[in-house]
Amino acid sequence: MIKNKGLILSMDVVEKQKAIMIAEETCDSVDAIKVGYPLVLGAGIGIIGELARYAPVIADFKVADIPNTNKLICEHVFKAGADSVISHGFPGRDSLSSCIETAEEFGKEVYVVAEMSHPGATDFFLPVAESIAEMAVECGAAGVVAPATRPDSLKRIRNIIGNELKIMSPGVGAQGGKASDAISSGADWIIVGRSIYKSQYPKKVAESIVAEIESVTR
Amino acid sequence: MIKNKGLILSMDVVEKQKAIMIAEETCDSVDAIKVGYPLVLGAGIGIIGELARYAPVIADFKVADIPNTNKLICEHVFKAGADSVISHGFPGRDSLSSCIETAEEFGKEVYVVAEMSHPGATDFFLPVAESIAEMAVECGAAGVVAPATRPDSLKRIRNIIGNELKIMSPGVGAQGGKASDAISSGADWIIVGRSIYKSQYPKKVAESIVAEIESVTR
Repeated sequence: MIKNKGLILSMDVVEKQKAIMIAEETCDSVDAIKVGYPLVLGAGIGIIGELARYAPVIADFKVADIPNTNKLICEHVFKAGADSVISHGFPGRDSLSSCIETAEEFGKEVYVVAEMSHPGATDFFLPVAESIAEMAVECGAAGVVAPATRPDSLKRIRNIIGNELKIMSPGVGAQGGKASDAISSGADWIIVGRSIYKSQYPKKVAESIVAEIESVTR
Repeated sequence: MIKNKGLILSMDVVEKQKAIMIAEETCDSVDAIKVGYPLVLGAGIGIIGELARYAPVIADFKVADIPNTNKLICEHVFKAGADSVISHGFPGRDSLSSCIETAEEFGKEVYVVAEMSHPGATDFFLPVAESIAEMAVECGAAGVVAPATRPDSLKRIRNIIGNELKIMSPGVGAQGGKASDAISSGADWIIVGRSIYKSQYPKKVAESIVAEIESVTR
């Protein structure tokens, strides 16, 4: 995925027509559109191809099964036209490698969840977050997902993964993270959802976030 | 979900028509049909409702996201007509509780992945498997998923979860586990896929597995 604007739109709407309308309006300001299961289950997997007409699509499926099932899921994702998929690392190296091998067959990319920011993440996820980030590097992932709400974590994860892997970072806007802080702390992209798609002026909001990102990168 | 035959069919086929044909043929011998993302992404979520005409459907989506996304995924699952959903526990207590609360709103059930048997499960999953099983009890899950390939694990998990929660157990047949061993070690249901749906005579295979289960339960 090419880094240009530094902004990824998280398309967490449920209606297909609304998703397409917002994609059309904002596509000049985003490097990619992230979709998850709630939209895909409601609209069908064809929504990936429809949105891909406007910007590269990231399937945020947090893939977390055994290797063969992961492969089948990723095949659906890439055949539907997605540019990349988000996988969990928690089910282990073979499960993640299966996603990455499948992506490579399609010339596509895998991003690994390296940290989650909801309260429950402290139960089992955070104690192994660094090991998962290391595994993402070793397995050949294109990058990781880590929250913008914790700039210190972003810096730590950047240290672990080096400069070759990319970081996409949710939590900006409605969840309280600041776009410029996240970028300054090592994120390549910030992922913004509600602040854009719930606005009356999605295009303007997206443009203003890009301007904020540019203020710390140019 | 009602335990009667002790057999769950894992419908890991990719064609909708084949899935329906096998469901029709085997429904007298199974307590439920388990479907995963590969079939649902290819056939659309409507396949859940179509299969539910033959037997209760378990959506094996290994749900593993933040609480709000989990809720949205589970709403899709139950609105589509599923009887239960399989959730991961590693994203933590709030994520799992979100699945269970959503299931309760629909009068449905959640089963939690308590152990996985692929090699990568040793990386991060197995060290916390028992804690995840404990959490499943505390959060009010209907049961857990644990592999039939390790009868000792089944016994250990049964000790942790007590007798109120159910255990469904994959790994029988093509993966080497034995139905009667799994049931004797504490499983309420065994989950069988390939041995049934790849057979020329799915109905007969299902019936013979049920007979094997009955040989240790009656």
